[in-house]
Amino acid sequence: MMNISQKIVSVRGKQIGGEQPCICTPVVGASMEQILLETEEICRKGPDIIEWRADFFKDICDTQKVLETALAIRKIAGEIPILFTVRSEKEGGNPIPLTETKKIQLLIEVCKSQVVDMIDYELLYEKELVSLRQVSKEYGIRMIMSYHNFSFTPQKEEIVQKMLKAESYGADIAKVAVMPTSPQDLLVLFHATQEARSQLSIPLITMSMGGLGVITRLAGWMFGSAVTFAVGQNSSAPGQIPIEDLKDAIRIVQKYMLSS
Amino acid sequence: MMNISQKIVSVRGKQIGGEQPCICTPVVGASMEQILLETEEICRKGPDIIEWRADFFKDICDTQKVLETALAIRKIAGEIPILFTVRSEKEGGNPIPLTETKKIQLLIEVCKSQVVDMIDYELLYEKELVSLRQVSKEYGIRMIMSYHNFSFTPQKEEIVQKMLKAESYGADIAKVAVMPTSPQDLLVLFHATQEARSQLSIPLITMSMGGLGVITRLAGWMFGSAVTFAVGQNSSAPGQIPIEDLKDAIRIVQKYMLSS
Repeated sequence: MMNISQKIVSVRGKQIGGEQPCICTPVVGASMEQILLETEEICRKGPDIIEWRADFFKDICDTQKVLETALAIRKIAGEIPILFTVRSEKEGGNPIPLTETKKIQLLIEVCKSQVVDMIDYELLYEKELVSLRQVSKEYGIRMIMSYHNFSFTPQKEEIVQKMLKAESYGADIAKVAVMPTSPQDLLVLFHATQEARSQLSIPLITMSMGGLGVITRLAGWMFGSAVTFAVGQNSSAPGQIPIEDLKDAIRIVQKYMLSS
Repeated sequence: MMNISQKIVSVRGKQIGGEQPCICTPVVGASMEQILLETEEICRKGPDIIEWRADFFKDICDTQKVLETALAIRKIAGEIPILFTVRSEKEGGNPIPLTETKKIQLLIEVCKSQVVDMIDYELLYEKELVSLRQVSKEYGIRMIMSYHNFSFTPQKEEIVQKMLKAESYGADIAKVAVMPTSPQDLLVLFHATQEARSQLSIPLITMSMGGLGVITRLAGWMFGSAVTFAVGQNSSAPGQIPIEDLKDAIRIVQKYMLSS
């Protein structure tokens, strides 16, 4: 049996994949000013991880501004790990005027700056994935490899395969976000999570999106999901719960899980 | 496809098996005085159903006292439906000095009094079940037929079978409470609930007990469980959450399910 410690990724002292689920809160502002105000507000709410969703940043094409903004976020976030994501439009991101090649160049610069702790990139673009993995490793930046499906929930085996693929490409963490169309799909996601958890030696993040999927955001950790995304000020995907409510709900569940 | 309205049982205007899960809170006092104080406190917390767990009543052998106490509970509960249960020791009840035959006689008297709205009886005793069903029907008392397993979670098919059996014996509502030994068991219970919900034409109540099962008490309704049990003052089974916390958690889940 795999030792659970092998499945933990430690970032600035924060354990991802340990006993406790981490709450990650996205920053989705359009301007630097908005982003920094949002970051301040989010930090007051005590997330475990902050994700800067830079696909919402209006100056995404200006690498210098991206780096300046990342540094300003870092100054506010202090020791809270920062995840840098430019979500692809194909997988639910905000449309941006960067080609995939330009996007990779930006991600490489961000890795080199070492201002953020983690980056996220989709499994969709395999060639880019490989080069980005190499650079991110060189600069000590953790890499999440992700799969999103905003239309439906694939079969359990396919979901597990996505995460195995992430591991095979050298991901530090594998992520899958899918859309349920029935309560049955929530069970598929939970099953896949549990199965991937036993097969992979890296932490994973899974969720069912949308209103129907809300329960997976607060109970996914029981089946092996290491991180759950919650709204700080504005959501970055359908079904995200405000961080205060998510914390309350997880606290209630855990309190009685331990006391009974 | 079965019309959902066929699966609803209406008791004093309360819909069991409808869109909203009902919260049932047990009364477990030993003396009449304790029971009535407990009922008062519970009623203030707004449960949908009150279950008098009469196996905890010290005067359970005195039919007259049982009927008097039931009437006193009714006066406090007003229009809140009352479920009368003498849980068998074999299925997690408090030990009582009544033979199964004497217990049936008591249940028959309680039905005749028409002071309570529902009774619960285990699937275990088939002969008694049949006679009790006849009498309860005659007096318009709804009957839950239940199966409890405090050791483990049987396979999905077996859980569904228990509920099909309840329906075949003429139950108004089928109930299954099982003990999980792994997160996987929670998925078995959810699956079984969903399958039974599609096969049966009566409402059902399911839960995984103990700390591990807490999530089924707040999410079971998504898979077809009509009632969830919550602590008013004292719990009657392992893993029950206080009614205030259960309501909070369900409210959070439902709020974001509907808004996303």
